[in-house]
Amino acid sequence: MIDLRSDTVTRPTPDMRRAMAEAEVGDDVYGEDPTINALEEQVAGLLSHEAGLFCPSGSMTNMLGIAAQVPRGWEVLADHRAHILRAECGGHAALAGVTSRTWVSADGTFDAAQALSMVSRPRGYNQVGTAVISVENSHNFGGGRVADIEQLRTLHARTRELGVAVHVDGARIANAAAATGVGLGEYGALADSVSLCLSKGLGAPVGSVLVGSAELIAEARVLRKRYGGGMRQAGILAAAGLWALEHNLERLAEDNAAAARIARAIAEVDPAVVDPDTVDTNIVFIDLGPTGLDAQAYAAATEAAGVRVSVMDEDSVRIVTHLDVSAEDARRAGEILARSLAENA
Amino acid sequence: MIDLRSDTVTRPTPDMRRAMAEAEVGDDVYGEDPTINALEEQVAGLLSHEAGLFCPSGSMTNMLGIAAQVPRGWEVLADHRAHILRAECGGHAALAGVTSRTWVSADGTFDAAQALSMVSRPRGYNQVGTAVISVENSHNFGGGRVADIEQLRTLHARTRELGVAVHVDGARIANAAAATGVGLGEYGALADSVSLCLSKGLGAPVGSVLVGSAELIAEARVLRKRYGGGMRQAGILAAAGLWALEHNLERLAEDNAAAARIARAIAEVDPAVVDPDTVDTNIVFIDLGPTGLDAQAYAAATEAAGVRVSVMDEDSVRIVTHLDVSAEDARRAGEILARSLAENA
Amino acid sequence: MIDLRSDTVTRPTPDMRRAMAEAEVGDDVYGEDPTINALEEQVAGLLSHEAGLFCPSGSMTNMLGIAAQVPRGWEVLADHRAHILRAECGGHAALAGVTSRTWVSADGTFDAAQALSMVSRPRGYNQVGTAVISVENSHNFGGGRVADIEQLRTLHARTRELGVAVHVDGARIANAAAATGVGLGEYGALADSVSLCLSKGLGAPVGSVLVGSAELIAEARVLRKRYGGGMRQAGILAAAGLWALEHNLERLAEDNAAAARIARAIAEVDPAVVDPDTVDTNIVFIDLGPTGLDAQAYAAATEAAGVRVSVMDEDSVRIVTHLDVSAEDARRAGEILARSLAENA
Amino acid sequence: MIDLRSDTVTRPTPDMRRAMAEAEVGDDVYGEDPTINALEEQVAGLLSHEAGLFCPSGSMTNMLGIAAQVPRGWEVLADHRAHILRAECGGHAALAGVTSRTWVSADGTFDAAQALSMVSRPRGYNQVGTAVISVENSHNFGGGRVADIEQLRTLHARTRELGVAVHVDGARIANAAAATGVGLGEYGALADSVSLCLSKGLGAPVGSVLVGSAELIAEARVLRKRYGGGMRQAGILAAAGLWALEHNLERLAEDNAAAARIARAIAEVDPAVVDPDTVDTNIVFIDLGPTGLDAQAYAAATEAAGVRVSVMDEDSVRIVTHLDVSAEDARRAGEILARSLAENA
Repeated sequence: MIDLRSDTVTRPTPDMRRAMAEAEVGDDVYGEDPTINALEEQVAGLLSHEAGLFCPSGSMTNMLGIAAQVPRGWEVLADHRAHILRAECGGHAALAGVTSRTWVSADGTFDAAQALSMVSRPRGYNQVGTAVISVENSHNFGGGRVADIEQLRTLHARTRELGVAVHVDGARIANAAAATGVGLGEYGALADSVSLCLSKGLGAPVGSVLVGSAELIAEARVLRKRYGGGMRQAGILAAAGLWALEHNLERLAEDNAAAARIARAIAEVDPAVVDPDTVDTNIVFIDLGPTGLDAQAYAAATEAAGVRVSVMDEDSVRIVTHLDVSAEDARRAGEILARSLAENA
Repeated sequence: MIDLRSDTVTRPTPDMRRAMAEAEVGDDVYGEDPTINALEEQVAGLLSHEAGLFCPSGSMTNMLGIAAQVPRGWEVLADHRAHILRAECGGHAALAGVTSRTWVSADGTFDAAQALSMVSRPRGYNQVGTAVISVENSHNFGGGRVADIEQLRTLHARTRELGVAVHVDGARIANAAAATGVGLGEYGALADSVSLCLSKGLGAPVGSVLVGSAELIAEARVLRKRYGGGMRQAGILAAAGLWALEHNLERLAEDNAAAARIARAIAEVDPAVVDPDTVDTNIVFIDLGPTGLDAQAYAAATEAAGVRVSVMDEDSVRIVTHLDVSAEDARRAGEILARSLAENA
Repeated sequence: MIDLRSDTVTRPTPDMRRAMAEAEVGDDVYGEDPTINALEEQVAGLLSHEAGLFCPSGSMTNMLGIAAQVPRGWEVLADHRAHILRAECGGHAALAGVTSRTWVSADGTFDAAQALSMVSRPRGYNQVGTAVISVENSHNFGGGRVADIEQLRTLHARTRELGVAVHVDGARIANAAAATGVGLGEYGALADSVSLCLSKGLGAPVGSVLVGSAELIAEARVLRKRYGGGMRQAGILAAAGLWALEHNLERLAEDNAAAARIARAIAEVDPAVVDPDTVDTNIVFIDLGPTGLDAQAYAAATEAAGVRVSVMDEDSVRIVTHLDVSAEDARRAGEILARSLAENA
Repeated sequence: MIDLRSDTVTRPTPDMRRAMAEAEVGDDVYGEDPTINALEEQVAGLLSHEAGLFCPSGSMTNMLGIAAQVPRGWEVLADHRAHILRAECGGHAALAGVTSRTWVSADGTFDAAQALSMVSRPRGYNQVGTAVISVENSHNFGGGRVADIEQLRTLHARTRELGVAVHVDGARIANAAAATGVGLGEYGALADSVSLCLSKGLGAPVGSVLVGSAELIAEARVLRKRYGGGMRQAGILAAAGLWALEHNLERLAEDNAAAARIARAIAEVDPAVVDPDTVDTNIVFIDLGPTGLDAQAYAAATEAAGVRVSVMDEDSVRIVTHLDVSAEDARRAGEILARSLAENA
């Protein structure tokens, strides 16, 4: 079975397991886990920030990044398909009391002017002010699209003037970097906070790192404890993250390429369901609308043929390539997905 | 001074004051205030609903209507300029834990398809589901635009199928009804909950009524107590509301007409700053962008000449007509606003 | 029917109604209601504070006083029967995110040492710190007991050293002042914030005033808007408050005396159910435990005989004297309550 | 250096690390991690419950256990020194909106009657009802005291009648079981939910398990995702938990004995600072009050001599024995702590 539901499903390799088994650890609630400290420092450095915070999930790094920068009752602006608003159980509002408004992008690409046009600078105490603009790069439910670096530069420059912060949901920012050649440090320098997931394309079993100024991270560290994310000898997990950064960062280009190959295989059968030119990274959305196929039925058919995909809504499915999908797997998956389409449409 | 900052600034007339002074009252926390009970029943009836709840503000009726229908961590959808998201201190998120996404309307008019295209029906427990679509009618920061009844019918029919509720922020729904001739009962029947303000065009000093099913209102009554909105002998205020419904409902058409007259006077001087055809009700936005005028400076100039307006952002001001603005006041205000524009542009 | 359920049930007199009908008003959300401004200033002055804030309920003034002084996740300490924890729908936690611990008083009297022994000064970031000690004076569910001024002085002195604030739930602080002869200003000077209700013993229909430093009140004013307590021409209500402060403050001693008379009448029949020496103000708790009487049944019996009381739990009822209970009413109520006890025990 | 600050500081042994390195894992957000599933099932069985939930911290299992059983605005009752109220950043209020009241125990022992006397069964919608009584067993800040099984039986029986749930903060319930010989299953059967920490006496690096009914755990699973506690291949951590349950459960009696030995050594020097008869489990509080010693200074002195302790407040320190403290370490620590006391007092 080739599992393309998500890049979260990867399992640690023997080498990564060995690194975990040998990790030097301590009680991180006391700040004494050397491996966590090393990971936090390394990710902060990679992304051009002062400090980092290791958390059990990307939902937590995003939520803390927002909670630490948006006062209760103020707002975060984001794309209408943003993961922080669509797939994190509403934690930013339910727990952190942060309200939100969305711009509506056609296809998941980021347009700085569109985002900036929404900014509210309140004139009275009853009005809600914009504290953070959140950009997801690459953009999961936006089809894995990469935010253009020029758009990010414009956003950064203008938000400085406006006094608004930028949070990057960088769960897959390493996939974006692999696609564009823009460095992680360059991306990071254009944001006030970035979350980066270790358990997606990088292949570590657990964890995400939030980076930002020392002050922001100190605040987020207190919040992490309140939200229940303070772990003890989690250096075991951090060791996997460090190993992943050393060994799996460069190879993300392969995942991006595999996704493109799969998209092309499908487009050959039916160019209406996916445009390979929009596949920037390791995510492919197949729009079954034009075929009349039900997404649930299509997913069942591909699973019967050996490929698992994620049903997103009534007429679309998502496939995600990752470390546990070889080039040959990708080739075969493309064939199966295309054939299932041809046979069922 | 002609005060066009808002229709909230009206002062009770001697007749209304007499009705308040003579009101029969009781302790409403025990449900024993006959005047409040009468008002709640009357507004519920007017809007085709089972029950009503009198609250100290429109912010509270909107917040309770949403909180009673949206579980924490679920979402409300609304226009990106919706009052509930822009001007109620973020209470829906900060207090009720409700998240939000917005559609972006060009000019404040309501498009059911646009709203419905945003609805999320979650497929996994981490995904945020849409519980309520909120429609503001008339739409304050949308320039007082009225939602078309056909659009509301489409929304109502489709949301029944989707299992999503409709809340109408009807702070000024009586102005909408006066503009279109559609009855309040017809508007109300197309929603699951409606808030109606007594202290705007209707001219009562304080209060707003939320209507809905008996069950929804029972839930909102408990929340009202928690939010600190449980008042004692507030029948004094409710009496003003009853008086207003009896005497001030019909005359709202005059406010709408006055706003249109003012818009025309301004457009004669500069048609780029306001289009009188978009003035549906008692609100006029003047877009100073084309003139290069600073909103603050323009507002200072009109105030010096005898008309107060609200500055909305750097290059727009809002004027609102109401009970305390006579036809002659409106004529004079139109002159002053137009002349200030001509002199300062 | 003599209604002794609560002092909230009073109805405004013709004179008070006249004051309301003639009140000069404005839009208080803009800060332009002269009557509200006058009331806020007067109550602040009475209680030795810089500024005041008029709210629709005592639940709101207490909640805002706490929310403005206790960061989320920090704690307020209070008596285990405190109204803020027992009878305000948990708003301090549910909305303001404030946690609480309680000291357990035997009989509702306030012991500063007991309160101070609970104070937490956190040594690590996971520990909850004490931000406010709340004292209810007089203490409703504590049988209307008055906090001793020496205890309050000790509390004030020691909290200054500890960096902990003192909030006084002074819903009935005027009853306490009437009982002890201590001035309202003296009580107020020993606290960082005080709430005072206009709609209890003072007899106004609606409202409560929070007082504190200008900074605290500015913060509470923003919160009031978020919680939905921002009213427009509420000077109508404030006028009743001003009238009440002028005419009904002195006479509270009569309510206190009437309560004592009623307690004595009951104690003559059965000294086990109430000790008149513990009746400091206008509240009497009757403990039916020793009689084996069910509180619900006793309340039904007294109502049939012409006196309404509040059932507090299975074996206790509360009676509260107020402006609408004459000396003759009190005499008759004492008789009826005592007779019902004798007949039903 | 002998580290007695907490039993959270233990480091995984080679055998435990090997179990982790070899763990079979999957994506737990999809419910596909076999090792986590096994751990959840095993802990649920041990504690006589239907289902279990693995979380990154004990703060999270406690918070979710309470949040899943206490509606917002309702209350949890607990000891005034309860860890859930003192040392979890106020999450139950700040995030879950749960209010709290406390009984005040003299010495950390649990008295069911005292807890039950606080229960509130609300008679009106403004009153706060008790939803959960939380018992910490053993009681960390209560000196490691164990709750007597007869008291727990009384609590269980009476709460069934009252319709109130019982949550056990069982971070160290295995230490309690080791001390009393009462089985974990017997303790668990007397509660509606129990949290059990793997990273304290049991010596696993990370994690805590919440157990309860299948329904409660299903609700908590959704909340875990919202709070950011949804991890991916965390079977790595769960494997350590399973290993710990197999190998480290029985030996907790040694930690309890070591703590008693240390307490006796100290009491020999000064019986006023600790009573060995109150040392039920692996925690010893030293009350420096009688000696006049400052806790910070004492802790510095013992650290210089080779023993680290936790400063709890100005005049008390806590010592905790654990897996990484051998019998010889304990003997030496007792000597050092006693000598430091003698030398500095």
